[in-house]
Amino acid sequence: MFESAELGHKIAKEVYRKELPPLREGLLDAQLDLLQSKKFPVIILLAGVDCAGKGETMNLLHEWMDPRHIESHALRELTDEEQNRPPMWRYWRDLPPKGKIGIFIGSWYSAPLVENVYGRTKNAELDQQLDRIIRFETMLCNEGALILKFWLHLSEGQQKKRLKKLEEDPKTRWRINETDWKNFKLYDRFRTVSERMLRSTSTPEAPWTIVEGADEHYRSLTIGKVILEALRRRLDAPETPPVDEPLPPMLTSIDGLQILQTLDLTKKMTKPQYDAELETLQGRLNLLSRHKDFSKISVLALFEGNDAAGKGGSIRRVTQALDARSYRVIPVAAPSEEERAQPYLWRFWRHLPRRGRVAIFDRSWYGRVLVERVEEFCSHADWMRAYGEINDFEEQLVRNRTVVLKFWLAISPEEQLKRFKEREKIGFKRFKITDEDWRNREKWPLYEQAVCDMIDRTSTEIAPWTLVEANDKYHARIKVLKTICSRIEQALEKR
Amino acid sequence: MFESAELGHKIAKEVYRKELPPLREGLLDAQLDLLQSKKFPVIILLAGVDCAGKGETMNLLHEWMDPRHIESHALRELTDEEQNRPPMWRYWRDLPPKGKIGIFIGSWYSAPLVENVYGRTKNAELDQQLDRIIRFETMLCNEGALILKFWLHLSEGQQKKRLKKLEEDPKTRWRINETDWKNFKLYDRFRTVSERMLRSTSTPEAPWTIVEGADEHYRSLTIGKVILEALRRRLDAPETPPVDEPLPPMLTSIDGLQILQTLDLTKKMTKPQYDAELETLQGRLNLLSRHKDFSKISVLALFEGNDAAGKGGSIRRVTQALDARSYRVIPVAAPSEEERAQPYLWRFWRHLPRRGRVAIFDRSWYGRVLVERVEEFCSHADWMRAYGEINDFEEQLVRNRTVVLKFWLAISPEEQLKRFKEREKIGFKRFKITDEDWRNREKWPLYEQAVCDMIDRTSTEIAPWTLVEANDKYHARIKVLKTICSRIEQALEKR
Repeated sequence: MFESAELGHKIAKEVYRKELPPLREGLLDAQLDLLQSKKFPVIILLAGVDCAGKGETMNLLHEWMDPRHIESHALRELTDEEQNRPPMWRYWRDLPPKGKIGIFIGSWYSAPLVENVYGRTKNAELDQQLDRIIRFETMLCNEGALILKFWLHLSEGQQKKRLKKLEEDPKTRWRINETDWKNFKLYDRFRTVSERMLRSTSTPEAPWTIVEGADEHYRSLTIGKVILEALRRRLDAPETPPVDEPLPPMLTSIDGLQILQTLDLTKKMTKPQYDAELETLQGRLNLLSRHKDFSKISVLALFEGNDAAGKGGSIRRVTQALDARSYRVIPVAAPSEEERAQPYLWRFWRHLPRRGRVAIFDRSWYGRVLVERVEEFCSHADWMRAYGEINDFEEQLVRNRTVVLKFWLAISPEEQLKRFKEREKIGFKRFKITDEDWRNREKWPLYEQAVCDMIDRTSTEIAPWTLVEANDKYHARIKVLKTICSRIEQALEKR
Repeated sequence: MFESAELGHKIAKEVYRKELPPLREGLLDAQLDLLQSKKFPVIILLAGVDCAGKGETMNLLHEWMDPRHIESHALRELTDEEQNRPPMWRYWRDLPPKGKIGIFIGSWYSAPLVENVYGRTKNAELDQQLDRIIRFETMLCNEGALILKFWLHLSEGQQKKRLKKLEEDPKTRWRINETDWKNFKLYDRFRTVSERMLRSTSTPEAPWTIVEGADEHYRSLTIGKVILEALRRRLDAPETPPVDEPLPPMLTSIDGLQILQTLDLTKKMTKPQYDAELETLQGRLNLLSRHKDFSKISVLALFEGNDAAGKGGSIRRVTQALDARSYRVIPVAAPSEEERAQPYLWRFWRHLPRRGRVAIFDRSWYGRVLVERVEEFCSHADWMRAYGEINDFEEQLVRNRTVVLKFWLAISPEEQLKRFKEREKIGFKRFKITDEDWRNREKWPLYEQAVCDMIDRTSTEIAPWTLVEANDKYHARIKVLKTICSRIEQALEKR
């Protein structure tokens, strides 16, 4: 894999001087087109052997293009706000919006590589990590991002020469430290693991470009040209309306029996029973939130359900049990301008709770496979892939010791009609029934199908859905509280 | 000041029960109007004596209103990202947008109070701090925020009783720690300093409401009623077009001599001289950015100037000297939706650099007193007050060890015409001349007046303007680089 990058590629100074001006002009031009069209974000990864010119390339790209619209990110110590969230949180924070360029040195590949080279992870774990990376990058590509990955390579001899040279020059000596030499001693091991990594993460959407790093002119010109070509190709592609590929149909139960139908919506609870249980459960939840190990986990509860199913009321019964300082409710509405310039999960990543905190989402990322699917706000392929992306997302949360609770509040069409009419009668503005509510109601079967598919595909053992029979509000609220308490208890016991 | 809050106010349980439902209904109603109209943000401060019911009140407000549109913030340890910025950064992060409610326990009053009580600051310092708070709150009010400040009071006897009671009950014992008793021993001192603080920060726009905290019913009902009345009053006020108050005129120099006219725009530099100086200065800047103490300061450079004065080119000559990882260029364009829901300085606060980093603003907060003034995008009063607000903002930066560099790049109308025509001739898109550029040009005298006023009012000894004669680009770039180097050197020497 690295053979072609050890041939001693070289570009003569005169050639470089001649080729550079049109390249720079072209890059600047493409960057401006990108900025004005805001068609897509560009993510450039610079990875590879130590001292192969990653930093130099980063600086060069800033010089060649307009630095006002590039943001570069290097490996660095995590801040404590980052340490509190899943590892990918810091990269989500740094993703460039549409129209801009983000350059990453190191990036999400660094830790898996180094950990494996130093024997801290097994190969099976590495493969898992790489698999997650592939899924992450595929998601970015599906969301429109252009990802350009460069691997700067040096042969063992070249690296040694370069380390020595940097060390001998008093002006560059500061760049070399013990870790560099320690890594160098493991050159072969780095090479083997890198090869495995590159091989398995070189996907059609986001392939690696391996570049010999020894000759500065060759390296810079190669990278510049690849970037320019990729940019131009995407920018100049005709605007074709997204063709809905003929995806295989999703299985719908051929006997008509679906999960929602198994719910016994007649479940009920009396007021006195409710009052007693509510008090007990709220007290239990409050105690749990002050448990000594609570600061080691975080809790994320999301609420979805039919219109008028009582999400707001259930959420309030939960928040009443918590100290106002420890939770946040995130009402999910239409995305803002800044959010629309990012992948659809971005606006949820930004609200992830730190440890010791509770985040409650009133509606959530499941909008993608519910309203966006039914109302055709996104393409068939978009919501089809969302199931997997959502499972990946929640897996990251769980791995970061987040208790993920997902509630579907289900009512019958009859109960909904009753509530709509009551609300119309009271005419109280905070329960205003809009035309949209009535329109949604007409699509009941479509929504029901979407809900069943959602549950089938995203109710996982680490983040299961809890289906809540909500025709009776008392029953619903108690079930929600009970579930939250017992899931938190499980999480605390495991610690 | 606290006499009325030691009278033993009490509300009978029956009265409370009777008055509560309409109060809650009213609050919920007002909150919904606020949310839908997005007229203004609401900032509620809960401060006062320990154990006087701040936390309880916060929780109650969440219960009474819709918790999805309230965000509460308590005193807590600063994260390292916050420690790197001026102390007010964390509050700017937490400001509620228009339409929402933010509740703060402790808030910006806590540190000044405690520091003074424990003798770590002198009274003169306290007064300075309070003065800054007043200016901050006045700014928020001018930007439309509704600020409601509650001081929960307990007499010495009441506090002691309450501390003991909490300590005796096993369910609440966790709430009391040593600090509480230590603070209690200083009750008199707290009382004196609080009184001074309340007196001097009770402004007409944001007065304190002192509430006796001992009786829960009295306390809750009082606070609820004050909030409801304030909300309703603001929500129901007729939408009057902002009347431009007849402010006193700003002095314009009666002999016509203004600062911009003193610039010698004929200043020039030859190409060889430029090349030599550029290399030296970029090298010097690069070394400075790697100085061992550079991680203890931050650098913020902003560029303003006539259209086509060469801001972009100057910025590039600065960034070329820096490692791409250490700086960010922030191009200032029209504010986003999220930014428009906040005070106008908010969108700059969010980009403040951490220590060891450089932030370069291509245009800046001075837009308020330049384009917004001339084009009448904001009222006369708005830009008049901006001078002071900007000075306050920059003072906070400087106090946080930020080197603040402000460049005005000045060219003559003749030079601008020449550059516009050249650009039109080349027709190169990244220098496209728009109708707006020509329109701005017609307003040259108005802009010139605005620039002179800006310099007169915001060139301070801690954050001076550097006027750059920019008819000759070489001269301009060198002057910018020289200024940056020497200001950073001064800052490093002082340490």
